[in-house]
Amino acid sequence: MTTNLYVQDVTLRDGMHAVRHRIAPADVRRIVAALDAAGVDAIEVAHGDGLAGGSVNYGPGSNTDWEWIEAAASVLERATLTTLLLPGIGTVADLKDAYALGVRSVRIATHCTEADVAAQHIATARELGMDVSGFLMLGHMAPAAQLAEQARLMESYGAQCVYVTDSGGRLTMDGVRERVRAYRDVLSPQTQIGIHAHQNLSLAVANSVVAVEEGVTRVDASLAGHGAGAGNCPIEPFIAVATLTGWKHGCDLLALQDAADDLVRPLQDRPVQVDRETLTLGFAGVYSSFLRHAEAASRQYGVDVRTILLEVGRRGLVGGQEDMIVDIALDLVGAARS
Amino acid sequence: MTTNLYVQDVTLRDGMHAVRHRIAPADVRRIVAALDAAGVDAIEVAHGDGLAGGSVNYGPGSNTDWEWIEAAASVLERATLTTLLLPGIGTVADLKDAYALGVRSVRIATHCTEADVAAQHIATARELGMDVSGFLMLGHMAPAAQLAEQARLMESYGAQCVYVTDSGGRLTMDGVRERVRAYRDVLSPQTQIGIHAHQNLSLAVANSVVAVEEGVTRVDASLAGHGAGAGNCPIEPFIAVATLTGWKHGCDLLALQDAADDLVRPLQDRPVQVDRETLTLGFAGVYSSFLRHAEAASRQYGVDVRTILLEVGRRGLVGGQEDMIVDIALDLVGAARS
Repeated sequence: MTTNLYVQDVTLRDGMHAVRHRIAPADVRRIVAALDAAGVDAIEVAHGDGLAGGSVNYGPGSNTDWEWIEAAASVLERATLTTLLLPGIGTVADLKDAYALGVRSVRIATHCTEADVAAQHIATARELGMDVSGFLMLGHMAPAAQLAEQARLMESYGAQCVYVTDSGGRLTMDGVRERVRAYRDVLSPQTQIGIHAHQNLSLAVANSVVAVEEGVTRVDASLAGHGAGAGNCPIEPFIAVATLTGWKHGCDLLALQDAADDLVRPLQDRPVQVDRETLTLGFAGVYSSFLRHAEAASRQYGVDVRTILLEVGRRGLVGGQEDMIVDIALDLVGAARS
Repeated sequence: MTTNLYVQDVTLRDGMHAVRHRIAPADVRRIVAALDAAGVDAIEVAHGDGLAGGSVNYGPGSNTDWEWIEAAASVLERATLTTLLLPGIGTVADLKDAYALGVRSVRIATHCTEADVAAQHIATARELGMDVSGFLMLGHMAPAAQLAEQARLMESYGAQCVYVTDSGGRLTMDGVRERVRAYRDVLSPQTQIGIHAHQNLSLAVANSVVAVEEGVTRVDASLAGHGAGAGNCPIEPFIAVATLTGWKHGCDLLALQDAADDLVRPLQDRPVQVDRETLTLGFAGVYSSFLRHAEAASRQYGVDVRTILLEVGRRGLVGGQEDMIVDIALDLVGAARS
């Protein structure tokens, strides 16, 4: 049986976190044109925290989602234009605006135990005729069976695909394997499964490979791994491994490599790599997008980033609690003084 | 059953390739002291191509092996000092000189189908009372059963451990798994198995994890992955995963992170990362230490590094044929002109 991969690039959505949501529309056009020509199936564009994510809590963007999406749509010829929406941040009205700009696919994202807040948005996207996936963030925080129950809820609302989303980059291969199997056990065979990996433990490519071996067809990846924390699954080595393994995909490896090294790495004001700060995200099980917020708090309050992140992990913070990073830094400063 | 890991750091041997064999003895002392304090089991020191590797063909070093080894020995308090020897490059006399400087462990390295040239050196090392391993380089080039037969030869000469050595960073997890199983099938239960991974396909940590799951106890790793090509298995994420998995080791994760980011990354005149050049090593199955030679030929003859490396892979070059990289570059220039 041949494995046919659906490769979704997240450079211009998750990758927004890596540069504090600052990418010029001209760069968006260059990157989208390169990805489109290199044959990826879908290109995701939005603030790192999804439509309308630009705010004091999540970090303002250099541009609006609409400016980024229009830039992408203006050069797109072949790939599917897709976006991300977190209910509570983005609204049904935002979804309709994205559709009006040419977005035909969307992922509705919730914390891994809160699928039910996605019902309305998934239903609306289906009514619009969009391709709709459910995205259960910080998937390491729920055991496989519980996560699969949430995936089944997403499916019941109309999601055509549900992702194992390792936002903290905390899962090892066994953790991915058992979650994909649990999904497969409860989802309809018509429902696809996706994998969204982070590189914090240096396992993003391996986790994506294992996921595909277990039946995943949709794989998130990005140019040079550009993404939150230590980045996402780097698309170039993933496509190389897929090719060596004999999986079918539409990607041109050399074109992806050139886009990664010539267009994306030069944008990074902080290297996207496994280092002491980003590894700590994975080790502590912290939302990868907290990295730059924690680094800012570290600079401001003089506390080691790792100390902040380990405490964030201990307290089990989830997406939306970015403001509590400052509280934690202040607590740590106070504890050191007393 | 508890897994007890033996972690061997290769920053100051394989990592020599990453900086064209130029590390000052003062940096060797700093790095060895940090590794020793951080609890690794063994520290390997030599030219990238082993004792006496400094030459026109392999690249001259900034210092002699003896200067590096003396620097290491001068600060070592706890870890085992070890080195590498390739018969044909290093000699029995070199081995005895290393022993005289305090080296008590050695790996004898051959191409994966040429174990028999190691017999004399392994026997001599055993006579000296050293810990001796066999190191079958470019292990992806031989099928599992054939490689295991070579491992059995190494064992018959006296090797107490034999490595699955993925010098090209070409193996995926399945390839590692079947090779370790094949070793286990033919080696005595008293003989240890080791894994030496490269990051070219971004699978070094995963390959090392899979190897341990299959019975490997000795794991090669390096600070920030410092090593040939895209580097070796980065020790920080490997130790993080080992800790999360519950494997026993003696390493202090935070101390390793500090040594990686503060002492080793600043030495790199070319980032050790998965990029278009280093990924091509893995994709084409090329000896990782060919990278900087191929980059030099690319600059000199104006041919894309990837084109050179793909041809090196097609021709099946092995260690020792570094001079043929220039021949290939010249052939490619000639073909382009004709």
